[in-house]
Amino acid sequence: MREETEETSPQKRLLAAIGPEVKKIEEAMRCDLQVATSQADPLLVEILEYGIFNGGKRLRPLLAVLSARLCGLQGEKIYDLAIAFEYLHAATLFHDDVIDRGETRRGKPSVNKAFGEVAAILCGDFLHSRSMFLVGSRGGSASLEVFCRAANGMVDGEFLQLRNSRNHNLSEEDYFTVVKGKTALLLAATCEIGALAAGASLPQQQALSHYGLNLGIGFQIVDDLLDYLGDAKQTGKAIGNDFQEEKMTLPLIAALTSASPEDKKRLLFLLDNDEARQTGFSEACALIDKYNGFALSRNRAESLVADAVAGLAVFSEEAALPPAHTLRALAEYVLTRNK
Amino acid sequence: MREETEETSPQKRLLAAIGPEVKKIEEAMRCDLQVATSQADPLLVEILEYGIFNGGKRLRPLLAVLSARLCGLQGEKIYDLAIAFEYLHAATLFHDDVIDRGETRRGKPSVNKAFGEVAAILCGDFLHSRSMFLVGSRGGSASLEVFCRAANGMVDGEFLQLRNSRNHNLSEEDYFTVVKGKTALLLAATCEIGALAAGASLPQQQALSHYGLNLGIGFQIVDDLLDYLGDAKQTGKAIGNDFQEEKMTLPLIAALTSASPEDKKRLLFLLDNDEARQTGFSEACALIDKYNGFALSRNRAESLVADAVAGLAVFSEEAALPPAHTLRALAEYVLTRNK
Repeated sequence: MREETEETSPQKRLLAAIGPEVKKIEEAMRCDLQVATSQADPLLVEILEYGIFNGGKRLRPLLAVLSARLCGLQGEKIYDLAIAFEYLHAATLFHDDVIDRGETRRGKPSVNKAFGEVAAILCGDFLHSRSMFLVGSRGGSASLEVFCRAANGMVDGEFLQLRNSRNHNLSEEDYFTVVKGKTALLLAATCEIGALAAGASLPQQQALSHYGLNLGIGFQIVDDLLDYLGDAKQTGKAIGNDFQEEKMTLPLIAALTSASPEDKKRLLFLLDNDEARQTGFSEACALIDKYNGFALSRNRAESLVADAVAGLAVFSEEAALPPAHTLRALAEYVLTRNK
Repeated sequence: MREETEETSPQKRLLAAIGPEVKKIEEAMRCDLQVATSQADPLLVEILEYGIFNGGKRLRPLLAVLSARLCGLQGEKIYDLAIAFEYLHAATLFHDDVIDRGETRRGKPSVNKAFGEVAAILCGDFLHSRSMFLVGSRGGSASLEVFCRAANGMVDGEFLQLRNSRNHNLSEEDYFTVVKGKTALLLAATCEIGALAAGASLPQQQALSHYGLNLGIGFQIVDDLLDYLGDAKQTGKAIGNDFQEEKMTLPLIAALTSASPEDKKRLLFLLDNDEARQTGFSEACALIDKYNGFALSRNRAESLVADAVAGLAVFSEEAALPPAHTLRALAEYVLTRNK
């Protein structure tokens, strides 16, 4: 219990610090969607409401706002740009859940499950367009280029994952390429575009892009760890999903890399065999742990996040300002989150 | 035979006139995709090649180029903007075929059939982003707004269609709303953005948007007619598809509106009943014809297209120039095409 209190306390401080920003982000999304869907089909409006206002962490818009603030941007205009990152993220989740036939998202039925695949594809397309419009019109051409590169990087990451979906011999390198594409590139773009909106210098843009990229990879590794070690009640997702879907994530890859031939064979058997995958999850966890798969992954996440924060040294003059504090606290949160 | 010669001859002249432009459009797409996919997964490149270079008519980019030229734009830069409309169109087709479980497209397996649904969704997303990027960076903020409005109108049209998918009592008004969303808004946007790129006056922009909208509706009505009356060898699509899928298109709606209670009942029976739909297609055609459903639809298409052309009167000084000629010839082609 004591440990939990120590862990959640900085999280609570962080939540208090970002609370007002998250509220503004939510308001900006409500306002914008009202305009964007004023003539739209009521079903589209209902699905967007269901799929977007679901207690999401709003990490992406928050990063855009914080990056812009750190680079000196004042005023409220940034929110209209920042929400584009949440839209693109949501569009990707809608389509991902169709692709993976995901049935739950944040503890409730996914959009495809609740409204059907067709609706999920179409609503994803709608949000996709809207996000591009916001970035193009609020952020300008340079931002749109960064944004589209990230969007296409996400598709590319999905393709690599698709190509390797049954490849139990996935290399760490390929794992990181997929993670960059699927998660980290958008976070990097978010921070970079926030900096661009503030007219930041190139070193500042690069530092924030670097921060977003490494934070994103760290974030995904922790996600992969939670899929093995998390608490389903906290995460809102079934534990062991990745293993059941034969998804090669870092803990498993790391263990397979250093396991004895015998243990490697056993671990692959548990993964290959439909029945063993169901019944042998705890055994697989024990084997991964035996070869420090979880610890190695956590170390990796920690050093990436440390690297992300270290890069912010370029903001030496701004280091004491609230946005710098919050970016560092977010980095810490990424490592300590349990959902 | 005599009739066919008369019909195809202006088409051949049109093809000769647009041939060089279509070639430039194809080249621009190849160039752009090479840049956009230089670091992409080879499978993505393969699918884009398969899905895009398939003998399409390139009507949308062509309309953008012609509109810009009519408004006085010279030079080659317009092609990079124009291809965005083909990309968005292709993205929509990829997703539509997933949604409708379409198996063929232009006489060969659809992308979802050939490469799977996941690949079709992802490639659609890729093209969607790329199209937005091109319009935002080449056309600027005003163009991007028009473009995104059209993209979201397409989603909205799909939603209305989805909502009415089993509604055999669809009104003409709803039919036209769906057609506007699914086809005509993008054609209107294409022409309008072509005009914007040329720095055209507002009346010129509006005339071209009006041209695109009406041409688009006329185009779709002809498409719906071809689905009943076309030659599968020419169209590359099975005839009677819409009826089999219980899609309410104008010929059917028009016939149901004026049919005697007895004939209406019979037509609805043929439509409602799984077996009767298969065996009773010729009978349904005869009933539609009895109430002039085909003729009324054709008249409607003809008057819309005539209206599209009439609006070009604002270009009185440019009326004798090649782009004006070609836009008029395209309007004629829309009505006479047999595939």
